[in-house]
Amino acid sequence: MQIDILTLFPEMFNGVMQSSILKKAQEMNAFQYSTVDFRNYTENKHNKVDDSPYGGGAGMVLMPQPIFDAVDAVKSSTKNKPRIVLMCPQGEPYTQQKAEEFAEEEHLIFICGHYEGYDERIRQELVTDEISIGDYVLTGGELGAMVVIDSVVRLLPGVLGNAESATADSFSTGLLEHPHYTRPANFRGLKVPDILLSGHHKKIENWRRQQSILRTLERRKDLLEKYDLSEQEKQWLIEVDKTF
Amino acid sequence: MQIDILTLFPEMFNGVMQSSILKKAQEMNAFQYSTVDFRNYTENKHNKVDDSPYGGGAGMVLMPQPIFDAVDAVKSSTKNKPRIVLMCPQGEPYTQQKAEEFAEEEHLIFICGHYEGYDERIRQELVTDEISIGDYVLTGGELGAMVVIDSVVRLLPGVLGNAESATADSFSTGLLEHPHYTRPANFRGLKVPDILLSGHHKKIENWRRQQSILRTLERRKDLLEKYDLSEQEKQWLIEVDKTF
Repeated sequence: MQIDILTLFPEMFNGVMQSSILKKAQEMNAFQYSTVDFRNYTENKHNKVDDSPYGGGAGMVLMPQPIFDAVDAVKSSTKNKPRIVLMCPQGEPYTQQKAEEFAEEEHLIFICGHYEGYDERIRQELVTDEISIGDYVLTGGELGAMVVIDSVVRLLPGVLGNAESATADSFSTGLLEHPHYTRPANFRGLKVPDILLSGHHKKIENWRRQQSILRTLERRKDLLEKYDLSEQEKQWLIEVDKTF
Repeated sequence: MQIDILTLFPEMFNGVMQSSILKKAQEMNAFQYSTVDFRNYTENKHNKVDDSPYGGGAGMVLMPQPIFDAVDAVKSSTKNKPRIVLMCPQGEPYTQQKAEEFAEEEHLIFICGHYEGYDERIRQELVTDEISIGDYVLTGGELGAMVVIDSVVRLLPGVLGNAESATADSFSTGLLEHPHYTRPANFRGLKVPDILLSGHHKKIENWRRQQSILRTLERRKDLLEKYDLSEQEKQWLIEVDKTF
């Protein structure tokens, strides 16, 4: 996979892209990335990337020309048809399903603004996806792009070893994970539940499943409502929680 | 504000923390941060931070001892009562309201796991907040911590200048932003809407408000349902969209 990132702050990416799984994934050629400072594509004298908004108002707006030309330059260097992803608060809320979709692509281009707005023509004519990683305000799109890249790259074939992929991922199963415990069995007087030390694999499996359902009920009822519980589990939940 | 980050990958943070607004905020003493590699707090011979789960199963679980002791060490160096934030997929979904709440604190401690689970006793006895930045799987809590830090620091007094704060933030107003346009008025045949060039400030304001409502309706009906529209706006919406 090829990833190109249009940003005015390319230095933000080094630490994250050169650590842990993202580093390993590049070493095994699962993906490569480059940052593109779109200020280098400006055609005006002062290398301005933004200007004041038509119709008045405070704040600045990223001009279409540098971003269109930077994307054109990236596209001309490849025969792939890239997905062009705009990171913005108005975008589609990012989900694990979207990560799986992006992981099928050969080429992703990310456009990261930085506390300016985007000229609407960038949204309408250039990008294929507008993505928001959550309902909170960040100073730029760079962290969002890193989040998407991390979530996508870990899905590429061979990137995760057994140790890393073995964890039952919360958003892959649709339920939140059950509690985990490890050594010591008694830590500062806090003990591991007896059942986990019992050796009854069937009972442990059942307890974990119930804990997983209970935690999802308590914390993320919205996820549980989308989930397909067995009839037996529904009966059990009604006994445990009269409000269900 | 003091921020301490418990992580096995401290080198991930440099690029993000030393750029743009986060860099500026440190230079003006709005906050300072340090990373704490909790592997340095292990008491076992091989500096292991994780172990296999009680009750069996694949994957590894972060042991309580190194994390409890690292947090104790951080707390002993300050008289503030810190919020202790665990980044995890099972956490409370992060929102702008939570960012505003964190921005009132004097001291935040973040705990970042990395593709392991957390021993449940860390959740139950140590942390004050469990936070998830979204419904997708990341390889670790580090990017989540950076997202939270960025969203919080930009709210600290004086950190954003006029230029940066002037943008009407989508999640502060409760509606998505209206479209923005800047120069040129005609870019590759794509034109700016006439109304924005009209000079009628009242009409422009009205158009922007309607575009903001429409965009929220199309993309994030969930946000619009929570929003308190005026009676006039509701009437207008019913005319525009019969399904509303």
